[in-house]
Amino acid sequence: MAKKVATKTKKCSAKKPCAKKNEKYTYLFGKTTDGDAKMRNLLGGKGANLAEMARIGLPVPPGFTITTEVCTYFYDNGKKYPASLEKQVKLGVESVEKQMGKKFGDEKDPLLFSVRSGARESMPGMMDTILNLGLNDKTVEGLSAKTQNPRFAWDCYRRFIQMYGDVVMGVQARNEAEPEPFHHVMEGLKAEIGKKFDTELTVEDLKELVKRYKALIKSRIGKTFPQDVYDQLWGAIGAVFGSWMNERAIIYRQKYGIPASWGTAVNVQTMVFGNKGETSATGVAFTRDPANGENEFYGEYLINAQGEDVVAGVRTPHKISQLQNEMPKAYKELLAIRKKLENHFKDMQDFEFTIEENKLYMLQTRNGKRTGMAAVRIAVEMNKQKFMDEKTAVLKIPADSISSLLVPVFDTNAVKRAKVLAKGLPAGPGAASGEVVFTAAQAELVASRGRKSILCREETSPEDLRGMIAAEGILTSRGGVSSHAALVARQMGKVCICGASEISMDYNKRLMSVGDIVIKEGDYISIDGTTGEIYLGEIETAPSEVIRVLSGKMKAEKSYTFQLFQTVMKWADKYRKLGIRTNADTPEQAKRAVQFGAEGIGLCRTEHMFFEGDRIDAVREMILATDLQERQKALKKLLPYQRKDFEGIFKAMEGLPVTIRLLDPPLHEFLPHESAARNALAEKMNISPEVLTERCKALEEQNPMLGHRGCRLGNSYPEITEMQSRAIFEAAASLIKKGKKVKVEIMVPLVGFVQELKFQAEVINKTAEAVMAEKKVKIDYMLGTMIEVPRGALTADEIAEVAQFFSFGTNDLTQTGLGMSRDDAGSFLGRYKELDILPKNPFASIDKGGVGQLVRIGAEKGRSARPNIKLGICGEHGGDPDSIDFFNDVGLNYVSCSPPRVPVARLAAAQAQLKK
Amino acid sequence: MAKKVATKTKKCSAKKPCAKKNEKYTYLFGKTTDGDAKMRNLLGGKGANLAEMARIGLPVPPGFTITTEVCTYFYDNGKKYPASLEKQVKLGVESVEKQMGKKFGDEKDPLLFSVRSGARESMPGMMDTILNLGLNDKTVEGLSAKTQNPRFAWDCYRRFIQMYGDVVMGVQARNEAEPEPFHHVMEGLKAEIGKKFDTELTVEDLKELVKRYKALIKSRIGKTFPQDVYDQLWGAIGAVFGSWMNERAIIYRQKYGIPASWGTAVNVQTMVFGNKGETSATGVAFTRDPANGENEFYGEYLINAQGEDVVAGVRTPHKISQLQNEMPKAYKELLAIRKKLENHFKDMQDFEFTIEENKLYMLQTRNGKRTGMAAVRIAVEMNKQKFMDEKTAVLKIPADSISSLLVPVFDTNAVKRAKVLAKGLPAGPGAASGEVVFTAAQAELVASRGRKSILCREETSPEDLRGMIAAEGILTSRGGVSSHAALVARQMGKVCICGASEISMDYNKRLMSVGDIVIKEGDYISIDGTTGEIYLGEIETAPSEVIRVLSGKMKAEKSYTFQLFQTVMKWADKYRKLGIRTNADTPEQAKRAVQFGAEGIGLCRTEHMFFEGDRIDAVREMILATDLQERQKALKKLLPYQRKDFEGIFKAMEGLPVTIRLLDPPLHEFLPHESAARNALAEKMNISPEVLTERCKALEEQNPMLGHRGCRLGNSYPEITEMQSRAIFEAAASLIKKGKKVKVEIMVPLVGFVQELKFQAEVINKTAEAVMAEKKVKIDYMLGTMIEVPRGALTADEIAEVAQFFSFGTNDLTQTGLGMSRDDAGSFLGRYKELDILPKNPFASIDKGGVGQLVRIGAEKGRSARPNIKLGICGEHGGDPDSIDFFNDVGLNYVSCSPPRVPVARLAAAQAQLKK
Repeated sequence: MAKKVATKTKKCSAKKPCAKKNEKYTYLFGKTTDGDAKMRNLLGGKGANLAEMARIGLPVPPGFTITTEVCTYFYDNGKKYPASLEKQVKLGVESVEKQMGKKFGDEKDPLLFSVRSGARESMPGMMDTILNLGLNDKTVEGLSAKTQNPRFAWDCYRRFIQMYGDVVMGVQARNEAEPEPFHHVMEGLKAEIGKKFDTELTVEDLKELVKRYKALIKSRIGKTFPQDVYDQLWGAIGAVFGSWMNERAIIYRQKYGIPASWGTAVNVQTMVFGNKGETSATGVAFTRDPANGENEFYGEYLINAQGEDVVAGVRTPHKISQLQNEMPKAYKELLAIRKKLENHFKDMQDFEFTIEENKLYMLQTRNGKRTGMAAVRIAVEMNKQKFMDEKTAVLKIPADSISSLLVPVFDTNAVKRAKVLAKGLPAGPGAASGEVVFTAAQAELVASRGRKSILCREETSPEDLRGMIAAEGILTSRGGVSSHAALVARQMGKVCICGASEISMDYNKRLMSVGDIVIKEGDYISIDGTTGEIYLGEIETAPSEVIRVLSGKMKAEKSYTFQLFQTVMKWADKYRKLGIRTNADTPEQAKRAVQFGAEGIGLCRTEHMFFEGDRIDAVREMILATDLQERQKALKKLLPYQRKDFEGIFKAMEGLPVTIRLLDPPLHEFLPHESAARNALAEKMNISPEVLTERCKALEEQNPMLGHRGCRLGNSYPEITEMQSRAIFEAAASLIKKGKKVKVEIMVPLVGFVQELKFQAEVINKTAEAVMAEKKVKIDYMLGTMIEVPRGALTADEIAEVAQFFSFGTNDLTQTGLGMSRDDAGSFLGRYKELDILPKNPFASIDKGGVGQLVRIGAEKGRSARPNIKLGICGEHGGDPDSIDFFNDVGLNYVSCSPPRVPVARLAAAQAQLKK
Repeated sequence: MAKKVATKTKKCSAKKPCAKKNEKYTYLFGKTTDGDAKMRNLLGGKGANLAEMARIGLPVPPGFTITTEVCTYFYDNGKKYPASLEKQVKLGVESVEKQMGKKFGDEKDPLLFSVRSGARESMPGMMDTILNLGLNDKTVEGLSAKTQNPRFAWDCYRRFIQMYGDVVMGVQARNEAEPEPFHHVMEGLKAEIGKKFDTELTVEDLKELVKRYKALIKSRIGKTFPQDVYDQLWGAIGAVFGSWMNERAIIYRQKYGIPASWGTAVNVQTMVFGNKGETSATGVAFTRDPANGENEFYGEYLINAQGEDVVAGVRTPHKISQLQNEMPKAYKELLAIRKKLENHFKDMQDFEFTIEENKLYMLQTRNGKRTGMAAVRIAVEMNKQKFMDEKTAVLKIPADSISSLLVPVFDTNAVKRAKVLAKGLPAGPGAASGEVVFTAAQAELVASRGRKSILCREETSPEDLRGMIAAEGILTSRGGVSSHAALVARQMGKVCICGASEISMDYNKRLMSVGDIVIKEGDYISIDGTTGEIYLGEIETAPSEVIRVLSGKMKAEKSYTFQLFQTVMKWADKYRKLGIRTNADTPEQAKRAVQFGAEGIGLCRTEHMFFEGDRIDAVREMILATDLQERQKALKKLLPYQRKDFEGIFKAMEGLPVTIRLLDPPLHEFLPHESAARNALAEKMNISPEVLTERCKALEEQNPMLGHRGCRLGNSYPEITEMQSRAIFEAAASLIKKGKKVKVEIMVPLVGFVQELKFQAEVINKTAEAVMAEKKVKIDYMLGTMIEVPRGALTADEIAEVAQFFSFGTNDLTQTGLGMSRDDAGSFLGRYKELDILPKNPFASIDKGGVGQLVRIGAEKGRSARPNIKLGICGEHGGDPDSIDFFNDVGLNYVSCSPPRVPVARLAAAQAQLKK
């Protein structure tokens, strides 16, 4: 197969410069090594580390890396290569030939290559690999003669044809019913000759197999299996670059937020063989335990096997410690390498090795993937070992990892036995078990009887709030990780799985089903909000040790986990500049957040309180009032409730600042949607159900997100603002009188025009003066606004004339800035990830290029008018490490996030500052 | 009543500086004159022009003006005055005393004042006026003696008390049932003494009346009518400033977009009397006919009357020409003044005069309000007279005026006889008459029988489109001037009234009612979309002369109106820099727009075509398709329709550029909403109604405005983009082959990320290449995007790398930029106008401070990346003069508006450029 080489470069522009002449596209590793570990963007992770290992004297089979730039070029230029690549590859091969003293395609003693992908970030198993490249009808004889092992040689050859035929030439099953064709041919042969295992095949059998494989390829695609070794090489290179855009690679990148533009490198490396008999082996190892972080050598190997055998799981590998007995010399070498790797890379390494006839080769090393728990432990312990200083240790722990120290967990063994019913989106981490309930009422009933429940809904609405509070966990069959269910669950620290679309629910029959399996209300399920897995039946869960220590149920000195947590948090607080607040609507949430290190409340939503107890009736009366008098009557009923709410929160926060947002959501959200509830309300309000329905209908909106909400409510009905601020000030006054400290910050939502804020400020200030006069206390308070529509950000200088602080409401700012409804974006966000238009969900991680501009403009203009203005952010993004990095960069004073994200935010804030 | 004078200024800030010491708050006019016409912002229109008249030697009774700054101070400082005002008013009074040789409060020969408001813009009748101020129990005797006319003196006094008691002291009817109290007292007296007319009252009667008036005041408010003339004066000044914030003034300002911050001035002026007998008179006059602009002296007067009598309409005034006979000397003087005023002010003047004992006094002059027709005619004719040059003439015609030359009109006499049924919002100008129909189908049926109809709906949706086309006019009972009905009607140039909330509709019974009046389907109504009035019965209408000439039904030389129109348009084209395009979706609209001077189509919405004929079925099949194959099948059906549409439009535009926007609205909009229609569709599609309903439901969105629409559709289903661009290119190819010119501009909607555009561009370019190869023609086309979400504007530099042009979609940019749904803003925009938060509807006139920033940023960034990028705007704002001024300032290349707004836009564009 001839490689396509572009004769002319195409599509050059100022932003995407043309490939320069004489650009270096290949980098050697081995005795001569061009690259190093720092060149991972260019050489990919594998290539860079092969080079680095070669540099520090580890036994790396020589080879060369074709850079990621070639991949980018390949896709930008109709799958053609830069003109000079051909020559550079040739030179690479020749250099290896020289080092190995063998020739590629030599009929006597052929040099064989593996051709492997290697992206900037590891994407294990996602892209294609070709082994044993360089074998053909002639070289196989040479290998056979040279190794005096014809069976080995022919087995390598048939494996190579199989792999090449599949991956490069595309001979694959044409539908799901069809068996994998090469496998089918082999099974056919084995049946003919009455053999059961591959290992039973003789040299003659393998030769027959090779014949049949070649015939299969010819018959399937009308092309011959290439005998020219360079044709083989270019075919393999093309296949690896091609696999960058295969479906599973695309999906993987989506999941892990890897941009398609990074591209993959291709590593062409001398083959070494772990399958040359009992003195050969292959294995993978971690320098420490990747599951719990313990400082123990960890890994597994197989004697007389190729790497693929370990992965395929046909034979069960042995624990690495056994190698001590089987190959003590190699094991000793491995131990030394383990130490050398950690000393050199200063991090836990995950490496692959092959032992060919007692000689150890290193095929790969990389920073090992690890659980959150392991990440924390390894960082803390490596700091103790002086492998890394505090700052490095802080940077080494993915901020999200901290979460895994906090969430309740399933018993590990019980989970293994449990049946996975379905999978959804992991939306609220942790593990929960309980009875299936379909309504909020049922959830409350179950809770009142001391039992646990999982609230299962197609999607949730504010009406379900009481049920969500009562339930252990929430499961929805629709909606994404930023749906109402997910947002509220994370806010509450509830376990939550969203969008489990295989499940269909039937509220009327009170059951849900997945295929043939039917689960009735009252049946037990268990959900793992960290993985998205839904299990049939009950699985025992336990709160994390950190939570147990924080709530006084365990002693700190008894929990190593807690000590790790504390160490990391202490470091984080030392290096971060950003303040960390929490979004909390209840005293319970507030207390938990303070335990987690929150330094104040950045967002207290008054409306969440509206659903508690009977007060929803008064809320509804207020909403449905047709005149001021009626409305004031209803507001009067609400005042004592709200005052009590705020007292509770102020008390819980013990003098830390509390930012209270005035009523924000469209009023229609509070109204009953089902006729029974409407009728009941009509009766209570002493109006006819028709009138009530009509009033409800009048409040319906085409686009409630952009409708009559936020300060538009307070400006339409200043009496609501007055009631709410009175409740706030009266609560503050009552605590101050008891000698407590209270720091009140009143926040007016959805301000786009400074006048909107002015009118609200008038009402609030007047109320403050009135309450202070009545109660004869002085209340210090600040008055600010949320910046959550683009106009607010763009006119932040005007708004800052009135506002003493801003809190960026990045949820709504994202919705308006992108013109994208969070509730509706599900229908196209998947496609947008696939197309790489929006590699990350902009509701989870802030869109720096667009919404970020608005935040920056808002911050700068705000400061220009009021230099000491306090700036925070209270959207979902406040708990997202990537977003926190951005907010730190913009120079906000604090981020505010849901209580369980507070530790994550502390760590992310420190990392952001350290990265600066 | 003592005036409140602030001893300390309050609430000063950098933006609102404190009143400076020794600031000049009063300006004299008369023999000494401090002000002039240019000082209208400070002195108000009345005050400035009084000063100007005094300057040019016209007989103005002397007085002084208290500035508008005092009004602003008054409201900013708790209704207190600047400290130095008291002294300045005193000095003003003394100056007038000197000029008049009389003393204020003199018991022998008292100087009397009128106290009148006078804002920057005239607000006729909206604010309070006090006449005859300075009379009290003693001065009335002096006046009586001096004039030797006790009846006159006492009548003046009782009028003064009445006015002062009402306006300053607040003695008014306490509810609607109660009669006006002073009037009641007078009627009581007249009944007692058996007199019928006010004029029959004797001096003694009047003295009794004065007594009773004073008693009324005392009993009602417990205060005595003030005898101190300075107390009277301060009371009156306070009342005038106070009336700036009375309800009717606020409502008036809302309607005419006058900011509350302008404030009013107060004019204190020597009284002159038109009611001193048969040698006295009072009147108002226009230097030309304000209705049609004819150059004739126009006005009316009353002998022996005060100004209020002319306004009150108790006596019928005489035409001004009669004065020639009754008072030839005064008439001659008036003619001279008419000429002098026009010569001096260079504009048509509306003035008030009083003749006191044969001596003429000028009380006011101002630029006269006029109809659109008159504005055009006066400007053109004054230019001919060399009163103004072309530029001034262009600036003198409110751009909207041009509309009134274009719309069909009712027969003037017929309208006077017709019964006004209700009033709604004038949403599409012109006059239409027809049968009431409640459904699109009925409208089409009526049209097919050659009859005219008015489509009456609570509100309209795209489903009504066919009916809107078939009907003469559209009437809705809900929704504002930017509702669907209004937008589409203006687009089509249909007469439309929106939000006529008094009307309730019953589709089932096929009737609508206003109070007791019931109108059945088939009954005739007539609607005036210029005034918002709805009449019972049929009123004859006629198309405007301009339209008749343009459509060849009348010769240009026979229509003076058309000549006026042409003259103004020629001027406009000479001075404007902005290009004017039109938003047109059909060949008919396109042709009309070209006749009106459109230089291209700036927005051709492909989706409006989807509702024509049977194609909606194919559209629905496409939408409800569950896989690519089904969808492509439906698209194949649509292709020929769309191709034909585009051919028609290209043909109509004869080589002018045509910007075609690809599919934009959320798909749910195209689905049938009623079950009958759904069932029919299900049958056609051969699926069950349940399945259809479910698929429809799946497409419902929480916030469709921010949902799956715009290029998100084309990126989800590239096959739609492919079909649409194929239809466009095939249409272009077929015309090019026939030797016609075609200028295609394809516009991708709702782009926020450059990648969105890239993917669409790939599909479009590929299709273009394919069609060009198939048809063997070269098609020149441009590819651009709408900038209609904030992110699009903020990243316009990136987007401009791909887009060859931008069209700012300011409708959606307003919705997203302000976070305000056009469909839902009705519930608070009224209140927001009232509070002065949003003095203008941001969907009608662009919010320069916010959305305008986004337009400016988008334009600048776009140009930074592509200096020759073509920039336009195609939102509703494209036809709004104020917005056009802004777009001209930003330096856009063109604005695009609905066909009937094209002449308005041409004129507004010229004005914008001239104002620069």
